[in-house]
Amino acid sequence: MKKILIIGAGKSSKVLVDFLLKDAQAKNRKLILADMDVYEAEKKLEGHPAGTATGIDIHDSEKLGKLVQQADIVVSMVPAFLHPLVAKASVKEGKHFFSASYESPEMRTLATEIDRKGLFFLNECGLDPGIDHMSAMKLIDAETTAGNNIVLFKSYCGGLLSPESESDNPWRYKFTWNPRNVVLAGQSTSRFIRNGRYKFIPYHMLFRRTDLVTFKTVGEFDGYANRDSLNYRKVYGLEDIPTIIRGTLRRAGFCKSWDVLVQLGLTDNSFEVDLPRDFTMRMFTNSFLPYDPAHRVEEKIKRLLPWVDAVIMEKLAWLGLFDDTPLPLLKGSPAEILQIILEDKWKLSPYDKDMVVMQHQLEADTPAGEKRNITSSMVIKGENLEYTAMAKTVGLPLAAAVDLFLEGEIQLKGLHLPIRNEIYVPVLKLLASNGIHFEEEVVLSKNQ
Amino acid sequence: MKKILIIGAGKSSKVLVDFLLKDAQAKNRKLILADMDVYEAEKKLEGHPAGTATGIDIHDSEKLGKLVQQADIVVSMVPAFLHPLVAKASVKEGKHFFSASYESPEMRTLATEIDRKGLFFLNECGLDPGIDHMSAMKLIDAETTAGNNIVLFKSYCGGLLSPESESDNPWRYKFTWNPRNVVLAGQSTSRFIRNGRYKFIPYHMLFRRTDLVTFKTVGEFDGYANRDSLNYRKVYGLEDIPTIIRGTLRRAGFCKSWDVLVQLGLTDNSFEVDLPRDFTMRMFTNSFLPYDPAHRVEEKIKRLLPWVDAVIMEKLAWLGLFDDTPLPLLKGSPAEILQIILEDKWKLSPYDKDMVVMQHQLEADTPAGEKRNITSSMVIKGENLEYTAMAKTVGLPLAAAVDLFLEGEIQLKGLHLPIRNEIYVPVLKLLASNGIHFEEEVVLSKNQ
Repeated sequence: MKKILIIGAGKSSKVLVDFLLKDAQAKNRKLILADMDVYEAEKKLEGHPAGTATGIDIHDSEKLGKLVQQADIVVSMVPAFLHPLVAKASVKEGKHFFSASYESPEMRTLATEIDRKGLFFLNECGLDPGIDHMSAMKLIDAETTAGNNIVLFKSYCGGLLSPESESDNPWRYKFTWNPRNVVLAGQSTSRFIRNGRYKFIPYHMLFRRTDLVTFKTVGEFDGYANRDSLNYRKVYGLEDIPTIIRGTLRRAGFCKSWDVLVQLGLTDNSFEVDLPRDFTMRMFTNSFLPYDPAHRVEEKIKRLLPWVDAVIMEKLAWLGLFDDTPLPLLKGSPAEILQIILEDKWKLSPYDKDMVVMQHQLEADTPAGEKRNITSSMVIKGENLEYTAMAKTVGLPLAAAVDLFLEGEIQLKGLHLPIRNEIYVPVLKLLASNGIHFEEEVVLSKNQ
Repeated sequence: MKKILIIGAGKSSKVLVDFLLKDAQAKNRKLILADMDVYEAEKKLEGHPAGTATGIDIHDSEKLGKLVQQADIVVSMVPAFLHPLVAKASVKEGKHFFSASYESPEMRTLATEIDRKGLFFLNECGLDPGIDHMSAMKLIDAETTAGNNIVLFKSYCGGLLSPESESDNPWRYKFTWNPRNVVLAGQSTSRFIRNGRYKFIPYHMLFRRTDLVTFKTVGEFDGYANRDSLNYRKVYGLEDIPTIIRGTLRRAGFCKSWDVLVQLGLTDNSFEVDLPRDFTMRMFTNSFLPYDPAHRVEEKIKRLLPWVDAVIMEKLAWLGLFDDTPLPLLKGSPAEILQIILEDKWKLSPYDKDMVVMQHQLEADTPAGEKRNITSSMVIKGENLEYTAMAKTVGLPLAAAVDLFLEGEIQLKGLHLPIRNEIYVPVLKLLASNGIHFEEEVVLSKNQ
């Protein structure tokens, strides 16, 4: 009997829990789901005989230690900043550890002890990070093994609306994941390299310097560059690659409109305002525009940002930014106020379906002088508000890794990302049999 | 015999030291000048019989305490972050304290003990903060005392080049004070209120949303809004004023060119680059521009920022930003690299003279229905590289306050800014007799 301890019973745990419960009895496993809120954990388990719910205060290290002690492996689904607590308890009690979050510097300090105790620690095994690593490394390793030289790697991912749910919203966007991260996205200068040229894009230029990314089945998207693509040269073993860019996808046209909010300063999170009681949405918008009693708010936007067209203005108006209605939050950073406004407008309805898209673009030169242009695309649509595309693509890779590890199909030890073939080959195979797969297209041409 | 301890013998102490030494013997005073570098302190004293130089390690609290013990009053000329050490030692030993730096929250925690011990602590008594407070409060108090209602207050200050030194530099600017502060200026969102409308200007909009400020004697300047003008409503007792803006002055045209550096991302201090050895100035500039092999760096700037004209391009070229010469720093934030480039180009020559300009603009309504438009301007030019306008306007107010306090002409107790008439009246009078004075112009009109 193997015991899996999952800590954190939030929204993103449901798919993971269901997948592992499905054949838990057949595989002689038990699942302990722990959360601050034991009721939430019970709800997720739906009375399954292989599952046990338990309450946990993550900061009570003694109780955490006892809970971890009972398990064979630990899956951490807590907010990112709490992972180290769970990871430390796992190392201490000699238990394997799985998470979908970024491998933090604090996690790396545990590497020696993880090795010494012969444990397996896997982080970044969700969607992004997660599926991005695995699918990218599969392509990269295939080219390298064939003796080809990879000269370009671009990789984009986005959590969006499924096309059938886009029509009631001129932005063609709603929040399908953490709204705060969406509002603050891109605020660290983006760094990448293109044809051997280092490129740094400051925040206020990011949403106008986008790339067009096309999917055969679901159309066109804007891709904006992520924070630090340069780091991935080392992670993916592409130290000398002349072009590497990782980016985030939004529907084509979104970025140009979002840029207006950035330019005005509505996404500014660096200071707090404290506004009078009678402040309206329109006054809030006006506070980011020059003083000019001769022109209306709408006119001032067009004078300040001459490229703003009627389509963009309609999107701004749809958000209520020109309305004489009360501002829903008076004290906070502009970004926090904007988030409250957007959460109301960009809320998923019960009938909405989300969509996750990912695309890798590779160029590789063969020793025979051919150029291989590879495009590998994934499109996953949500089923309902619980089995969203986002929940599936975050939860299933982690569940698959746990399952495969317990089945002995992953036999590594140490601290890992899912970038080694011992991990990504079985995980991607299991994902494919669960509906998560990539369509690959290769175009060959003679190298000039 | 009164003993004045001055801690810090840097560049900005010379004017202060000279002023206090001038009649030290006649006034039966002794001056102890302490610095990490005792030689620097000796040099500043020029062997004056009323002065003694001493070495000090500011972090050796025991020695600092002993030194403070000997004095009657302490003047702190150390870097801002070290003031609290000196202030705490002064409170402990029961000594009065003077500085030209901002009153920090840490300073405020000492207020009760300062009161209890009957000490006088004066901060923000230099140029800006300092002369700005005093000259503003003089105007404000005069209007308020006359029963007038102040409806507008704008205040600008700049450390610049004297007109005769501007001609060899297309920017008409060189560093006359801390270069780092100049490169990073404005990076906190600017907040003010204009005609009852709150206004927030994000950094990337700051240098294009400037006001034109004119001095009869020295011409036109761009004024850009400082970080937080709203705070000054309370400080200056103007809680309900509909318009209050504080700003910084640059030569007219400067801001539009500086904005190019801001837009490109060259003033970004949020991340570090680590560039290859052969990186040139031109490659550095190019790293902030879109990849586009069909266009040259100069063309790409004009395509990205269509408002950039030939005059601006000449200024950028003059900085060497298009040169194939080695980049002088390869590792650091873009802002740090830009600072190194600018320090070379914007270095004062021995024959250069600097200039400090300050202007207050007030509008006040009289009970009789008249509107008073008051403009109060100060223009101070440097004499040489030691007696710069900046050194004089920072050092003399502090020296004057110390002198007047010892003469019994300032008799306050407690923690203060120079905003009370008991301070600003005698200090401004003494400054005027030392060449630092304002020209005031009042225009009366019928209120509409």
